Amino acid sequence: MKIPQISSRLDKVPASPIRKLVPFASSAKKKGVKVYHLNIGDPDIKTPEVMIEVLKNWTRNPVGYGQSQGEPDFLTSLERYYAKIGFGFIETKDIQVTTGGSEAISMALFAVCEKGDEVIVFEPFYTNYNSYAAVNSVKLVPVGTDGSTGFHLPRKSEIEDKITGKTKAILICNPSNPTGTVYTKEEMDVLIDIAKRHGLFIISDEVYREFVYDGKKHTSILEYMEDMPEQVILLDSLSKRYSLCGARLGMLVSLNRGVMEGVLRIAQGRLSSGLIDQAMAAKLTEVKDSYFEKIHKEYQSRRDVLYKGLKSIPGVFLEKPEGAFYTIVRLPVKNSEHFCQWLLTDFRLNNETVMIAPAAGFYATPGLGGNEVRIAYVLNVRDLTKAIEILKRALVEYKG
Amino acid sequence: MKIPQISSRLDKVPASPIRKLVPFASSAKKKGVKVYHLNIGDPDIKTPEVMIEVLKNWTRNPVGYGQSQGEPDFLTSLERYYAKIGFGFIETKDIQVTTGGSEAISMALFAVCEKGDEVIVFEPFYTNYNSYAAVNSVKLVPVGTDGSTGFHLPRKSEIEDKITGKTKAILICNPSNPTGTVYTKEEMDVLIDIAKRHGLFIISDEVYREFVYDGKKHTSILEYMEDMPEQVILLDSLSKRYSLCGARLGMLVSLNRGVMEGVLRIAQGRLSSGLIDQAMAAKLTEVKDSYFEKIHKEYQSRRDVLYKGLKSIPGVFLEKPEGAFYTIVRLPVKNSEHFCQWLLTDFRLNNETVMIAPAAGFYATPGLGGNEVRIAYVLNVRDLTKAIEILKRALVEYKG
Repeated sequence: MKIPQISSRLDKVPASPIRKLVPFASSAKKKGVKVYHLNIGDPDIKTPEVMIEVLKNWTRNPVGYGQSQGEPDFLTSLERYYAKIGFGFIETKDIQVTTGGSEAISMALFAVCEKGDEVIVFEPFYTNYNSYAAVNSVKLVPVGTDGSTGFHLPRKSEIEDKITGKTKAILICNPSNPTGTVYTKEEMDVLIDIAKRHGLFIISDEVYREFVYDGKKHTSILEYMEDMPEQVILLDSLSKRYSLCGARLGMLVSLNRGVMEGVLRIAQGRLSSGLIDQAMAAKLTEVKDSYFEKIHKEYQSRRDVLYKGLKSIPGVFLEKPEGAFYTIVRLPVKNSEHFCQWLLTDFRLNNETVMIAPAAGFYATPGLGGNEVRIAYVLNVRDLTKAIEILKRALVEYKG
Repeated sequence: MKIPQISSRLDKVPASPIRKLVPFASSAKKKGVKVYHLNIGDPDIKTPEVMIEVLKNWTRNPVGYGQSQGEPDFLTSLERYYAKIGFGFIETKDIQVTTGGSEAISMALFAVCEKGDEVIVFEPFYTNYNSYAAVNSVKLVPVGTDGSTGFHLPRKSEIEDKITGKTKAILICNPSNPTGTVYTKEEMDVLIDIAKRHGLFIISDEVYREFVYDGKKHTSILEYMEDMPEQVILLDSLSKRYSLCGARLGMLVSLNRGVMEGVLRIAQGRLSSGLIDQAMAAKLTEVKDSYFEKIHKEYQSRRDVLYKGLKSIPGVFLEKPEGAFYTIVRLPVKNSEHFCQWLLTDFRLNNETVMIAPAAGFYATPGLGGNEVRIAYVLNVRDLTKAIEILKRALVEYKG
């Protein structure tokens, strides 16, 4: 009997640095250890009650398929959302509802790249771009950024140096997961200029659009979309904005008709996104502004507590993150993955420990990020303070 | 300013024959026309009340991410389901929860094929296999089956003739969407023999497992799984079994550890399936057997009504479907896509019409299926009877 081999493509899909230590965390929890989760951007902020009410009042039965492009009432609510933030030119036909922002990433890479084509990313970048690049046979070409400049963009020439005949797009995350960087208007102008000059798509992941601190202004790719309708693709998600991570809803937005028609065909293949999730999310137009104001203030406080706390630990380096709810932190350890695992398997402070994500998986360049971690400040200030204290004590005790 | 081109890969993703006529249906509805939907397997059977209750009693807030492999209580309920139907060897570690059966198809094709590898399918086949083959750079190699034999498998040699050095798997749907064919034990034995002799994976889509009529027995691929643990992959879904199409939950089941570890990494990249959907679905262990008995009886009646009704129309040909809730029907028309569109745009009987799916998209061989349609008998007997009457009158009136 011959046994077939699985595809070598599978080997190229990396394990998630955010999730691969989960078994160690589960094991610790089974022993009664409390684990503070700073590894994943799964906020503790409440989902708006007006959305939860949709579940409580559910009457649609059977729970049938939705439309492939997205449910009409949800699409309309998204059109209204974009109009409210100043982009009234976006119509429902320009929006494809996706099953999480994840699916939007995958669709965008597939839509703009032939097999083996290249996409420029700024390193460190959102780790799951690696997964989708592998699944879609796309090569991510990293441009390095530096913690000492808050991971802002390097000189234009350093970006242009990476452009080859196979480069099809520049992919940014703004505000950035994992660095918390918010690109300035000037930086965006540089990227747009490069995209225009070299005929590239510019794909902007703006899942954290509302999470910008210290009164800074966010420059959305939407500001450039009408000027270069064929080249701009926005990736978006409701997960963070409305604490709906488990609802798996995102969007791909573009004025490029070929892209929109193509991704709709992909969407038809997977039939629809979740019907219940979309019914909930369609209530986004009824979420009061005060919901965001409160969240925004809360995250800025957390950011401040985290920054101050981490800065006080000897050997720890970070710049103050400007947005999103992550930061890349350099630790005084040789191998941050070993340290993160050790936190879960060996270290306890009053029977508590912390889970954080080793940063190597947020890089494409081998060897980089090995002494860094990504921290998500998704816990309340009291828990965050405890988690920082645990980290501080762990770094004293750790012999790695 | 240079304008980048979208990927030629997008062009290879076909529009869904099930959904591409939706705009014409919507337009008819806007004019007040009632449209009977026989185009899509979106059942009118109620979702079990014990699942709907989960929504009504929802307390988890925020709606956070689920586990990438699947929520523990949902995985446990699935393990119990498989044990109940006689496959107690399946453990939660052998199950990957997917976002609809759709994602399971995509993962399976990616997992077993290098780019350009071939998978044997029996034509006509589930149209979305075409989409996932395109997205995953896999070539579907069709083996023809014939309506006059109820689309049962051809001789073994006809299947083996299609095997090349690039063939990696045989993909079946049993009971079959779109033909309603239920493969016999003997047919399954032949496929298993071929898979063993040629070292192929065998991927079985058993979304309609429970929908088998006239007392026939379903032969699941699970009966062979322990004997050839490295080679068997089951694709499954809750959509039809529990009328949960809009909940987007499926499963990929295999004893091949490499496959399971690989698809988990893909799953980590997309974070999780829907949390609310999984909480609902985990109640499947509480659904009474009487729920299925009633559904089964109902579908068998519908099948009988449909078969008898269609047989009475001059020039219409079909064999009695044995399972699932679809049938491929040959019509006395030249171009069934034109006819299906005309039904929506031009034909009315008492201001009502019917939506059915042109069958060409269920074939990979160009030119086949051009005078066939797929009909899903997902309406109650009264509506189904009306729909058949509409079709009958339309065929008299149609000049195509």
